[in-house]
Amino acid sequence: MKRLAMTLLTFMALTPTAYSEIVTENIVYKHGDVPLEGFLAYDDSIKGERPGVLLVHEWWGLNDYVRERAKQIARLGYAAFALDMYGKGKVTKHPEQAKEWAQQLYNNMEIWQQRAQAGLKVLQKNPAVDRTRVAAIGYCFGGSTVQMLAYSGAEIKGVVSFHGSLMPPPAQPAIPVKAKVLILHGAADPLVTQEAMMKYIGDMETSGMDWQMVIFGGAKHGFTNPDADKAGMQVVGYNKDADRRSWEYMKVFFQEIFAPAPKDS
Amino acid sequence: MKRLAMTLLTFMALTPTAYSEIVTENIVYKHGDVPLEGFLAYDDSIKGERPGVLLVHEWWGLNDYVRERAKQIARLGYAAFALDMYGKGKVTKHPEQAKEWAQQLYNNMEIWQQRAQAGLKVLQKNPAVDRTRVAAIGYCFGGSTVQMLAYSGAEIKGVVSFHGSLMPPPAQPAIPVKAKVLILHGAADPLVTQEAMMKYIGDMETSGMDWQMVIFGGAKHGFTNPDADKAGMQVVGYNKDADRRSWEYMKVFFQEIFAPAPKDS
Repeated sequence: MKRLAMTLLTFMALTPTAYSEIVTENIVYKHGDVPLEGFLAYDDSIKGERPGVLLVHEWWGLNDYVRERAKQIARLGYAAFALDMYGKGKVTKHPEQAKEWAQQLYNNMEIWQQRAQAGLKVLQKNPAVDRTRVAAIGYCFGGSTVQMLAYSGAEIKGVVSFHGSLMPPPAQPAIPVKAKVLILHGAADPLVTQEAMMKYIGDMETSGMDWQMVIFGGAKHGFTNPDADKAGMQVVGYNKDADRRSWEYMKVFFQEIFAPAPKDS
Repeated sequence: MKRLAMTLLTFMALTPTAYSEIVTENIVYKHGDVPLEGFLAYDDSIKGERPGVLLVHEWWGLNDYVRERAKQIARLGYAAFALDMYGKGKVTKHPEQAKEWAQQLYNNMEIWQQRAQAGLKVLQKNPAVDRTRVAAIGYCFGGSTVQMLAYSGAEIKGVVSFHGSLMPPPAQPAIPVKAKVLILHGAADPLVTQEAMMKYIGDMETSGMDWQMVIFGGAKHGFTNPDADKAGMQVVGYNKDADRRSWEYMKVFFQEIFAPAPKDS
């Protein structure tokens, strides 16, 4: 009986508990001369290396929304790092300001990709991270950013774009794309026209990349952000169903890309 | 220690085991004067009512492929019933014959929907089934069929179409559609043109239905069937990644539709 109980205790130790503690930390780093400040979150009760997930903020900058997402990712057992694409403290609630900051990166693809890679390096170097198992997720502007990060040939297993614009894959990638791509898209997102969506699908098929796209009926731009409606923009809106479902699909995606490759039968 | 072990044993009893036994049974039933024979599968180790899943075969008829899928569904803990859309014993490997049988139903929407409902009734009446929690899934022709079943206003929680044609929703449904819709579609499926896909997305948005669509890069028609390539048809082909992923998404969908409604926060 004693031996049985020990076996059962071992079994239970392997199941997740509700008592894990999430540790967070602001990390200052640089891209060239630009000082940046990101946000790290991980479960302190997990010992050793674990998969790492990079998070890229919306066009507002690194705000509480993406910090909360980083903590949610940490609760899944991964090490999460929300990078900073704009510069230490550059956060806003004004669309005009957000647009200006995002535009500066849209207009310079090289800096855009390198800025994302700078954040990726911080995550990869963290001792809690198994650097062979890293993914990137992003919201809106951040969704576009993780697509661009994939196209840069970054050493990551996959990227997940939540209501990001659909970025055309490079016609001839300078270096092969290693990341699998999961696009989570709102059918009622007016920032992406039907024509743009069809062109994207065609281009992705030609690219030979490993890609999937989920289209959520009735979901607008920004469908994962409960505060989306506060911005007072017609095109954005929270959608609870699409929020919950897209998160579940992301978890399935992580299970695949962070697992050993399935054996051929 | 004894009490602890007992508690742990109770805990373990609630976790699924690898030793469950799948019971199968051929069930003869009728739609009007047409004799039909379906295939039931369920886990005998589960007591009492459980959610039920209706399966609709490809245009070949009720063959071993869909029987195997029914057993897989039963292993997930659901009661599975693979219905018969054509008539007892009507199974073929010849595309011309399959096309003829499918066409007879395509040409008569009323009979098509009623034939599916006849199978649904068999499942709903089964004592192992919680009839408030029933879904329908289908492959190719069967994928189209479950969409039509949803449009008929059937009392089901949801439908999943695996590489089915995209059926336009009724402009003004006679009765409200109760089922949530999950479409699992191959980006390289030549049976669905880009124009048809765009029209479908627009129509579904107008319909007000709860719908989602996953597009799998590189996947042809029939992507879930390991024997797809044997048919010698250019348009169909097995795709292991899309097969595995679509199955996982179906499981996520079932978890949602078979669970109690999420509380509003």
